[in-house]
Amino acid sequence: MNPYLNEEYGNPSSLYSLGQNARRALDQARNKCATVLGSRASEIVFTSGGTESDNSAIMGVAFAQKTTGMHIVTTAIEHHAVLHTAQLLESLGYEITYVEPDKKGLISAKSIVDVIREDTILVSVMLANNEIGTVQPIKQISDMLRQKAMEINHPIYFHTDAVQAPGALSISVDDLGVDLLSLSAHKFHGPKGVGLLYLRRGTPFVPTQAGGAQERERRAGTENVAGIVAMSVALEEAESSRLENSSKCIALRNKLFASLSERIDGVHINGDLHQRLPNNVNVSFEGIESEPLLMALDLNGIYASSGSACSAGSLEPSHVLRAMKFPDVRSRASLRLSLSSKTTEDELEQVINVLAEQVSRIRELM
Amino acid sequence: MNPYLNEEYGNPSSLYSLGQNARRALDQARNKCATVLGSRASEIVFTSGGTESDNSAIMGVAFAQKTTGMHIVTTAIEHHAVLHTAQLLESLGYEITYVEPDKKGLISAKSIVDVIREDTILVSVMLANNEIGTVQPIKQISDMLRQKAMEINHPIYFHTDAVQAPGALSISVDDLGVDLLSLSAHKFHGPKGVGLLYLRRGTPFVPTQAGGAQERERRAGTENVAGIVAMSVALEEAESSRLENSSKCIALRNKLFASLSERIDGVHINGDLHQRLPNNVNVSFEGIESEPLLMALDLNGIYASSGSACSAGSLEPSHVLRAMKFPDVRSRASLRLSLSSKTTEDELEQVINVLAEQVSRIRELM
Repeated sequence: MNPYLNEEYGNPSSLYSLGQNARRALDQARNKCATVLGSRASEIVFTSGGTESDNSAIMGVAFAQKTTGMHIVTTAIEHHAVLHTAQLLESLGYEITYVEPDKKGLISAKSIVDVIREDTILVSVMLANNEIGTVQPIKQISDMLRQKAMEINHPIYFHTDAVQAPGALSISVDDLGVDLLSLSAHKFHGPKGVGLLYLRRGTPFVPTQAGGAQERERRAGTENVAGIVAMSVALEEAESSRLENSSKCIALRNKLFASLSERIDGVHINGDLHQRLPNNVNVSFEGIESEPLLMALDLNGIYASSGSACSAGSLEPSHVLRAMKFPDVRSRASLRLSLSSKTTEDELEQVINVLAEQVSRIRELM
Repeated sequence: MNPYLNEEYGNPSSLYSLGQNARRALDQARNKCATVLGSRASEIVFTSGGTESDNSAIMGVAFAQKTTGMHIVTTAIEHHAVLHTAQLLESLGYEITYVEPDKKGLISAKSIVDVIREDTILVSVMLANNEIGTVQPIKQISDMLRQKAMEINHPIYFHTDAVQAPGALSISVDDLGVDLLSLSAHKFHGPKGVGLLYLRRGTPFVPTQAGGAQERERRAGTENVAGIVAMSVALEEAESSRLENSSKCIALRNKLFASLSERIDGVHINGDLHQRLPNNVNVSFEGIESEPLLMALDLNGIYASSGSACSAGSLEPSHVLRAMKFPDVRSRASLRLSLSSKTTEDELEQVINVLAEQVSRIRELM
């Protein structure tokens, strides 16, 4: 991204050559992202991140389809960027159905289509959960929705928050069968403050950020050229090493689960063991609140979290674990560890040792 | 910004130490910005740029004050980030009054207060115009609005789009007397994709980007830490060299106006000569459409524009010049040049020579 911060700092909307260089960089970045998504370049809208992508996807379709219907279906375990947008729409007269997951955090396709009504205009189901890593059956939901749409005689647009997916799962929009898809660059080693919204051609959409004619009038505001360039390269790299990294992460993750269960008593794995992001580990240790454990881990150079960073510091138990009907005591004990292709066996060993040591230390104190 | 892209890449919402380093960087950046604005740090909301700041300022207050009134006053020469947001609110049932400027692009304080009604909740007037550089009497408007608010017995919140101002004009929020103020980093040598909204304590506000609890629940989404750090440093530098740079730019600008008038026949200065941004030059050459002139300038290494970059490429004459009652032929002839503290006397001389040469060449062709 450096050249676009230091030398090629033209405004891509400017007609002079410095601006047109920036325009070309945007075009290239758009092509790169479109290739990974298997979409047209014109279907990519650059945003300021996953939150904006989720907000504008849901509000954009909701506002545009108001006369067709005002019912939206989502799940109880979405990111707050989706849930709070849904609540905002409720305050404007929309009706939202929040589908509950099973005890492993899985959403069945049937549970989604069962709540479709004549006035349903939009369905939003995340591809993979940010806390417990559960991967939802997006393709199956899409197929069943298409059937339903024929019955009710108007389209049901389908959005997926795929923020957790790049580098781990396929995000081919045709394979998934989605009309809208949200990504955030900093989830795949890109910079913070940039993301994208895939918007299938023909999807009715009212922009939520009004102003200039950027992004084909779907998102106003001078484009974050350097961030967008960086995101496109990061996305390309995440995709090209996806299969290799996924199997590496799955091996590490399974080893971590196995070692923790072997070395520590009273370990519960939260979420499904198989329908799961390769890099996601979420466990509860009986009788251990996560906060003192997180502090002990931090002192040992291990950066973990209890739920999502976006709600860190909140005293409420995670809405995801609550929706999975976990007792609050198990929710408060939840610990989330993320792996990456850069995680080594040695690091894994160290994490296991520190966890075993700290869990028994904290248990002794109680 | 480099350390926050390469090493200190923690999520500021994360509780572990890498995250808390990023949190501290955000806090420092917020303090720096607050110092320049003369505000509390807690009154600064970081955004993705000027467009988002304008959108959220206007919609944020409009939604929060709906039960008090649904009338908003703005001007016909605002940036599209304000005007298109106003139009969006009109579609939701709000009434907007667009105050017209005089022939020099000036908005009188009286013309604003004259249209205040019992149900006016918000006034939005830009501090300086992005095309013609006119500086509006914000302080005077603020004083008169306070009087009016007492008459109608409820507050009238006052927003200014100050995107053009840093490094040129004071943006002290108390001196200006505003409740909300928008800035965009790339207008003062910061990076693209980051901006801020000043939101005076106690101002009713509904966030327009829903999700996590970032920015004290006024703007959801993981913060663009590197961009924010860069913006705060750029704002501090713009402010500390403001007086020196302004007088330098004013001298260059006046010299440019004088030389162009002397060397070229039929030059019109657009906008007011005195109530003007130090760095803004906007002129029309009789009988010359700006497009071929811009291309000729570009070939000579001079990057100029006809109106605003955000509407570049549009065939419509500028809405600003139209509101100033310019005939379309003069609007289509408008040429905007921006100076900076880095502009040299030699560069100025070169611009004058190229302009004189190209204007006469194009006139000969006609």
